Amino acid sequence: MRYTLFGESHGPAIGIVLQGVPPGLYLDMDFIASEMARRAPGASALSSSRSERDVVRVLSGVFEGKASGSPLCGLIENTDARSHDYAATRWLARPGHADYAAHLRYKGFEDYRGGGHFSGRLTAPLVFAGAVAKLALRGRGIEVFAHIASIAGIEDASLDLASPDAGRLRDVGRGPFPVLDEARGDAMRQAILEARAAGDSVGGAIQCLVLGLPAGLGSPDFDENVESLIARHVFSIPAVKALEFGTGKAFASMRGSQANDSFVPSRPEGGPVTATNNNGGLNGGITNGMPVAFTVTIKPTPSIALEQDTVDMRSGQAARIAISGRHDPCIVPRAVPVVEAAAALAVSELFGVWL
Amino acid sequence: MRYTLFGESHGPAIGIVLQGVPPGLYLDMDFIASEMARRAPGASALSSSRSERDVVRVLSGVFEGKASGSPLCGLIENTDARSHDYAATRWLARPGHADYAAHLRYKGFEDYRGGGHFSGRLTAPLVFAGAVAKLALRGRGIEVFAHIASIAGIEDASLDLASPDAGRLRDVGRGPFPVLDEARGDAMRQAILEARAAGDSVGGAIQCLVLGLPAGLGSPDFDENVESLIARHVFSIPAVKALEFGTGKAFASMRGSQANDSFVPSRPEGGPVTATNNNGGLNGGITNGMPVAFTVTIKPTPSIALEQDTVDMRSGQAARIAISGRHDPCIVPRAVPVVEAAAALAVSELFGVWL
Amino acid sequence: MRYTLFGESHGPAIGIVLQGVPPGLYLDMDFIASEMARRAPGASALSSSRSERDVVRVLSGVFEGKASGSPLCGLIENTDARSHDYAATRWLARPGHADYAAHLRYKGFEDYRGGGHFSGRLTAPLVFAGAVAKLALRGRGIEVFAHIASIAGIEDASLDLASPDAGRLRDVGRGPFPVLDEARGDAMRQAILEARAAGDSVGGAIQCLVLGLPAGLGSPDFDENVESLIARHVFSIPAVKALEFGTGKAFASMRGSQANDSFVPSRPEGGPVTATNNNGGLNGGITNGMPVAFTVTIKPTPSIALEQDTVDMRSGQAARIAISGRHDPCIVPRAVPVVEAAAALAVSELFGVWL
Amino acid sequence: MRYTLFGESHGPAIGIVLQGVPPGLYLDMDFIASEMARRAPGASALSSSRSERDVVRVLSGVFEGKASGSPLCGLIENTDARSHDYAATRWLARPGHADYAAHLRYKGFEDYRGGGHFSGRLTAPLVFAGAVAKLALRGRGIEVFAHIASIAGIEDASLDLASPDAGRLRDVGRGPFPVLDEARGDAMRQAILEARAAGDSVGGAIQCLVLGLPAGLGSPDFDENVESLIARHVFSIPAVKALEFGTGKAFASMRGSQANDSFVPSRPEGGPVTATNNNGGLNGGITNGMPVAFTVTIKPTPSIALEQDTVDMRSGQAARIAISGRHDPCIVPRAVPVVEAAAALAVSELFGVWL
Repeated sequence: MRYTLFGESHGPAIGIVLQGVPPGLYLDMDFIASEMARRAPGASALSSSRSERDVVRVLSGVFEGKASGSPLCGLIENTDARSHDYAATRWLARPGHADYAAHLRYKGFEDYRGGGHFSGRLTAPLVFAGAVAKLALRGRGIEVFAHIASIAGIEDASLDLASPDAGRLRDVGRGPFPVLDEARGDAMRQAILEARAAGDSVGGAIQCLVLGLPAGLGSPDFDENVESLIARHVFSIPAVKALEFGTGKAFASMRGSQANDSFVPSRPEGGPVTATNNNGGLNGGITNGMPVAFTVTIKPTPSIALEQDTVDMRSGQAARIAISGRHDPCIVPRAVPVVEAAAALAVSELFGVWL
Repeated sequence: MRYTLFGESHGPAIGIVLQGVPPGLYLDMDFIASEMARRAPGASALSSSRSERDVVRVLSGVFEGKASGSPLCGLIENTDARSHDYAATRWLARPGHADYAAHLRYKGFEDYRGGGHFSGRLTAPLVFAGAVAKLALRGRGIEVFAHIASIAGIEDASLDLASPDAGRLRDVGRGPFPVLDEARGDAMRQAILEARAAGDSVGGAIQCLVLGLPAGLGSPDFDENVESLIARHVFSIPAVKALEFGTGKAFASMRGSQANDSFVPSRPEGGPVTATNNNGGLNGGITNGMPVAFTVTIKPTPSIALEQDTVDMRSGQAARIAISGRHDPCIVPRAVPVVEAAAALAVSELFGVWL
Repeated sequence: MRYTLFGESHGPAIGIVLQGVPPGLYLDMDFIASEMARRAPGASALSSSRSERDVVRVLSGVFEGKASGSPLCGLIENTDARSHDYAATRWLARPGHADYAAHLRYKGFEDYRGGGHFSGRLTAPLVFAGAVAKLALRGRGIEVFAHIASIAGIEDASLDLASPDAGRLRDVGRGPFPVLDEARGDAMRQAILEARAAGDSVGGAIQCLVLGLPAGLGSPDFDENVESLIARHVFSIPAVKALEFGTGKAFASMRGSQANDSFVPSRPEGGPVTATNNNGGLNGGITNGMPVAFTVTIKPTPSIALEQDTVDMRSGQAARIAISGRHDPCIVPRAVPVVEAAAALAVSELFGVWL
Repeated sequence: MRYTLFGESHGPAIGIVLQGVPPGLYLDMDFIASEMARRAPGASALSSSRSERDVVRVLSGVFEGKASGSPLCGLIENTDARSHDYAATRWLARPGHADYAAHLRYKGFEDYRGGGHFSGRLTAPLVFAGAVAKLALRGRGIEVFAHIASIAGIEDASLDLASPDAGRLRDVGRGPFPVLDEARGDAMRQAILEARAAGDSVGGAIQCLVLGLPAGLGSPDFDENVESLIARHVFSIPAVKALEFGTGKAFASMRGSQANDSFVPSRPEGGPVTATNNNGGLNGGITNGMPVAFTVTIKPTPSIALEQDTVDMRSGQAARIAISGRHDPCIVPRAVPVVEAAAALAVSELFGVWL
């Protein structure tokens, strides 16, 4: 399953073309809508006031409710594009945004309104594609879950990566603010509100698990290794700045005897399992049958009301910029389904379609 | 510039084919040999006792000392392959290694001796390819540096990512144990020796900088974005388990007002620069003209002398394994040129070859 | 420039996503509409009675009339989809069509109506993409032309491939039935009408030239060689069954002394040129500065009114099928802009976008 | 299965890296050697006097005689490289060769000796890779055959593409000059000897069949369609200038009623078959279960003893060139295993390796 994203925040529509969807896959539009709703703005008091419902119109690749196997195009109309909001800051490079990099890359021809093709809005078609991938994976007994690992330095409870509780993950995942520990979730929400009150924003992290992947998928070789595959997908999500597999960064201060996942002969019918899962289900770029686990860091929303230093890209002069209003002070909760989508799409690439 | 690695630890030879090397590039074999020496085992008391000199024989793609533009194959003979070392543990899955994953992936036909195609030895041709890429980048004024960011929890001094001192990085990079702060380097070495004495190993982290990259390279789109490109390359290095751009994981507990890199009009002839470089030189998947900076976490060497639990892959029975001798208790110092090589190769992909 | 096609003949819309369009390219919508009109059905008494105007709605990648450099999606609504036409023959594999192959490939889930994703209608977005590519190539002084080389065994006049008359090709290309020799064109039209009267169809061939390509583009290596690149694109056009470069099949009965294109020092400022152009502007997979010339064979339209033997795919029983009415008895004239589009897209891949 | 070729005619060695070889595949080195011998020069009085035995040394990817699943590198030393032969004509662009195109592409840094990377000698590693692919396909009941379709205008007997005699093809393929009709083969040989006596060369064509491919492999989409896949591979063979599927170019003068392959319910257990096989086993880019058949045109060897016009690339002055001695007056017989190899590799790409 491969995808091609298109669209800009303030153009007529955004969308995605998915290739390699297995023919016969039932496109459960209720499930898809529920996934879209998890990412959509306006779901809570914490998020952007832009209120688009993100209804996906499937233009191709589905026949009588099921995937036909041909390229599947999902289209989302932009219904709340207020382009007059952006003209005033046309030439001011917003700190933390891609305005300046894009200006050079696209030689001044980029659609600058609302971030254009760089807008977080482009994660909506990604969630659609992820929902299709999840439906395909579900048929193979594979599930993808994610929770908020931290916001503003407040960490969620930690998961046992070797034997996570799928039922609990499923329940947690249903809510708009998926945390394992509700008390810590309250603290996170409080931190978000405080940041917003200060005209500021906060960052965080998301942990994602893929359960049910068989052992033996992937390769140590460049472009087939599962870490590379997942990395390619998650770093395509705006605002992701770090990626850790399993124990991740903590490996740096561990000893081998702690870090190694020893094998135990626990499965009656299957192969050995590991007692711990520091490696996040991957050895040598190949799945080892344990849950695949990774964590991404999401930087704070760069759009903040506080005034910042910048430069006018036309004149080269110093300037000040404050970005008004409609932005999420923390995109981490809404990014949860996006990270899941990237994981689902990455993992789908491990399966050939033809034979 | 693209590459294809081949070879196994205990086969006759390992090597790499490089495509897209710019015709006319002078292949400075002294520089290449010095890069190979940085990675080679046996350079210090701290490393593996396997002592292969890793001489690269260039079989193609070079004519009269310069790249011809055709595929360039570099071959390294395996001269110290003692296969009898490995037969005893044929069926025991070494914890933290790919043995079990590979066994399933390759259906029992994998070359298990010394890790086979999964061996860290495969990083030798990668360093060769990286050296070629560095020579090509140098012609464009681009340099790649790395230092040991931490070992066993001991952190090196931190770098100013917005205006690093290239001269100092160049000096530091020449040594076999590249750290900014020698006192901390001593402490790291001490920790390595302690781990070795305990039959154990330690992990660490490497920070890499690419200086001189022009702004405007890359794309937000999947597979062209610079984060994805670098990620794909570094996760192909065995033992890399985390990747952070710029400030990386620390973004998770920052506010937007701290995290954003404000713009200042400092370059007389060029565009704006940023006062800080938390984003590691990348916005929206595109270079912004600041140093590209990333950090990778290297897990502790999984081969340790301490006895560990494992499973016999043939019988499914529990067993114990202790891995004797020749392994580095810490591969971080030798991984420094490997990470640089991956960065050089990734960045080379940003430049088209034809026009 | 790369593309992703989507859509089915009887779905809501068909379209294409184009990546790598150079930012700043003015999207001349009049030119694009004129290209679309060349392919559209209903242009003459000779073609299908399906009458869709094929208006392209650009959904992304264009800002203020110019390409922004982001993925460009062009959408064409299906306004004349009469699905009731096709239900009767649901299970009958039409000879010469992909029905049976698709039935196995997509396991019975394919959209069978009007050929679905296999429909010749999918060439409409291809012509749109080709028009964009032509606009980009024109800025580099590169032009693409094609004419009908033969229909029903009647051959057009032959072109001097070493020094074709660009002005004449430009004029010829403007008409709905592009031939060099109008008398032979009349004979071709007559043959088409006769075939139609007989309930049958005819095949033909199209010769395409790319003028203005600089020498030195391409590579002998797999996937970069220009013959492979063009082949990949033209064989994606339904009904193309043969591809010849330059003198093509006639090489088989030539001697080397006839076949070789000798070099002559004719260009004052440039390099040598060849006296003949049997090689179609390509040696070793690389452009040599001469016109790139190739010819494709288009098989007769498989949809014919004459009754043919077939099999019911559900029951496995023998059956008879006659395909009524709206089909072109010869698609060669309408395929001319499609072949040009494939050539323009293939050649566009030779140019890097970034530097 | 994907491949990367490397090497030059007069360098130390040429070779290939094969990725995706199925683990466990027994590497029958006798079969491989017999395939290499079919292509090797010096096999008959008709071919080049260069006499290299083309022994392949397998450097990686094979363990205990079987493919390990890791990248497989096959290396062939160049033992008969007489570079002094070529220095005299360093700056003369040989007509019909890539010298001039390569000179521009590689900016004068190409290895010009004996054609360098463009040499027909690079087809040796391709035949090796093809032999590996054939071994893999044989395990699935798929066989690849080719015969000389014509030389110097003399055509071999024609094959029934709908039900070819596999046994006879197998027998024919064993000989050094594979034709169906020996009398016509004699006439071809006579034509070759006449051309050689005249200091000239002749071209020809090769027809290739793939038997046993299941129906339903491929896709109409760009890059997955079987015609595109085969085209990409065969146009990577030097001297191939045309490619026809099934009836090929003859489609241009046929009517639909003749061209269409009607379906008949002949297989007891399988699906329908076609009564004829004009489409060469492919509809809409997908296999239909019939033999996949294609024909390639091989241009006459450009190296001829007759004097030809050329240009000195350094001075730009007109010159004359006659190419002495060791070249085949007709490479068609030796190209037969090369075309088979390309077909085997192309078809291997249709099968996923993992699941």
